[in-house]
Amino acid sequence: MSDLPTLAQVAAEAGVSPATASRVLTGSVRVSTSTRRQVHDAISRLGYVRHRAPRGGAGRRSDHMVAAVLCEPVHRLFTEPFYARLITAAEEVLTRHGVPLAMMTATAATSTVATPPLVSGGVDGVLLIGARERHPLAVTLAASGVPIRCLGKPPEGIELPHVDMDNRDGGRQAAEHLLLGGRRSIAVISGPPGLPAARDRLDGFLQTLALAGMTGVPVAYGDFSHNSGVHGMQWLLRRMPNVDAVFAASDVMAAAAVQTLRRAGRRVPDDVAVIGFDDAPVARRTSPPLTTVRQPVEEFAALAARLLLLAMSSPATAGGAGNNPVLPTELVVRESA
Amino acid sequence: MSDLPTLAQVAAEAGVSPATASRVLTGSVRVSTSTRRQVHDAISRLGYVRHRAPRGGAGRRSDHMVAAVLCEPVHRLFTEPFYARLITAAEEVLTRHGVPLAMMTATAATSTVATPPLVSGGVDGVLLIGARERHPLAVTLAASGVPIRCLGKPPEGIELPHVDMDNRDGGRQAAEHLLLGGRRSIAVISGPPGLPAARDRLDGFLQTLALAGMTGVPVAYGDFSHNSGVHGMQWLLRRMPNVDAVFAASDVMAAAAVQTLRRAGRRVPDDVAVIGFDDAPVARRTSPPLTTVRQPVEEFAALAARLLLLAMSSPATAGGAGNNPVLPTELVVRESA
Repeated sequence: MSDLPTLAQVAAEAGVSPATASRVLTGSVRVSTSTRRQVHDAISRLGYVRHRAPRGGAGRRSDHMVAAVLCEPVHRLFTEPFYARLITAAEEVLTRHGVPLAMMTATAATSTVATPPLVSGGVDGVLLIGARERHPLAVTLAASGVPIRCLGKPPEGIELPHVDMDNRDGGRQAAEHLLLGGRRSIAVISGPPGLPAARDRLDGFLQTLALAGMTGVPVAYGDFSHNSGVHGMQWLLRRMPNVDAVFAASDVMAAAAVQTLRRAGRRVPDDVAVIGFDDAPVARRTSPPLTTVRQPVEEFAALAARLLLLAMSSPATAGGAGNNPVLPTELVVRESA
Repeated sequence: MSDLPTLAQVAAEAGVSPATASRVLTGSVRVSTSTRRQVHDAISRLGYVRHRAPRGGAGRRSDHMVAAVLCEPVHRLFTEPFYARLITAAEEVLTRHGVPLAMMTATAATSTVATPPLVSGGVDGVLLIGARERHPLAVTLAASGVPIRCLGKPPEGIELPHVDMDNRDGGRQAAEHLLLGGRRSIAVISGPPGLPAARDRLDGFLQTLALAGMTGVPVAYGDFSHNSGVHGMQWLLRRMPNVDAVFAASDVMAAAAVQTLRRAGRRVPDDVAVIGFDDAPVARRTSPPLTTVRQPVEEFAALAARLLLLAMSSPATAGGAGNNPVLPTELVVRESA
């Protein structure tokens, strides 16, 4: 036990009083942003986790609640079909186990609003979605001791139990398919650089191209939305007018790229091959239907929910850190590439 | 105080023990459905409301949380744009006041899962959305004493503070527009009959037609979804082949009706006029653009959120029952009628 860092050590490391460190952990708004960041950094360096008394036994079971926390503005919950699929699948598993699911959203700017109910005992477990670098909620939750399961790899420097997709291998498969198809002027519409899933897709893709001797690949960064796919494709067309292949990190962005290419007079796949990511319903509705990297979205969310339930019922066992399964991704070849 | 019914009186009225009545109120699953219904009926008849001690003062403010509870399956949260607009607008107001919003969904079948965290003190206020007749959650919440604000009129027999749209007048405006346009073979695609908003739209529409001497108007009942709009329109075309006007209780269903009419070889509005309800973004994307009844959705949700915050901070004042504002609806004439 003496190895575990205490709150006093966190405070000393951050150069603040223990009372201030405690206020950061409970999400109080009466702490400046720079102080909060200092404490967060100290928490990450020391790996501090608050000790929580487990909540009752079977008798209190009916009070359990899980929160699915999306680190995005609320409108993204309703416009990004990936999130809807994740939450619907997680809800199905939890409800079957008699555990209610509450959904919350929090941007970096509103995370002090969302934090208190999550760390004050009102919630018995958290499914964390879309956490990216320097999102204050990921740090606070990691230190809170509340059972948590990240959907996707947590941001660098934060240790959190998670379930992941093999995004890197998905990027590799997309690159190999384009290389085998003889494409030589290849570009990327990536997701946000601070999001681990987006970076893994990009890394796997670029490394495979590099092994084939292809470097200096132009990359546009989007946010998975339709509009960012349009803007990314427009930028790439100016940057690389002879582009003959595009890998987009989501089907929504790939569909936007196809639309943008057609408006620019390019044929898909004859002039430009397009590969998406997700195998979302939109992939089949696009004309031509999208070649894409399938993620097992429902399986992924259901597994995360089951591991969280396990951690909630027996904190010391396999629900904890160290058991971080990675689900395989798979290229689905249709007509766009 | 002696006028207020006690839990013991509820139990006696329901013919169960006080312990059983209490279990129903806390959402325990260890009560049969028929017993739960007996207790719910007794609660409604007596108007029982649990006395709750107010939670702390300003010092605990940062622990406050509001739940937006949608009485529908979770997938409807992501497929019905009306709910996304409501919740996005409510979230904006609450976050501005430093109060986090959690979203939950509950069907009649899963309401025992959702009830405990809502009534056990984990939540300080509830925005109730889409409550329809015999939904157990509406009854339990009404009795729980937790501050609540219904978005839309609560189901019959349940007293709950609410904000409403003037759905009845919206129905009236749609009917008058069709009558003034010379339409004489008029049909309706209504929402679910157990949902007060749907019934008010239908009543306002049918009563206006009746005043013009038009009775026996055929009504198809949908659930606001695209598919139910398609099926409703197909049924009406068989039932009334000479139909020359349709009023649909949502724009999504109206857009589905336009599509179905076109596939049946009917021109809109030349052969058949179509009026929707909502003035959702889809109303402008339909070809031809929809004539529709505009609801001030964002204003409606923001007002409900503000009244709920008021009730949470001072339970005895204007946030309570008796102040149930009704916002006006307005016909927007485009090309479909």
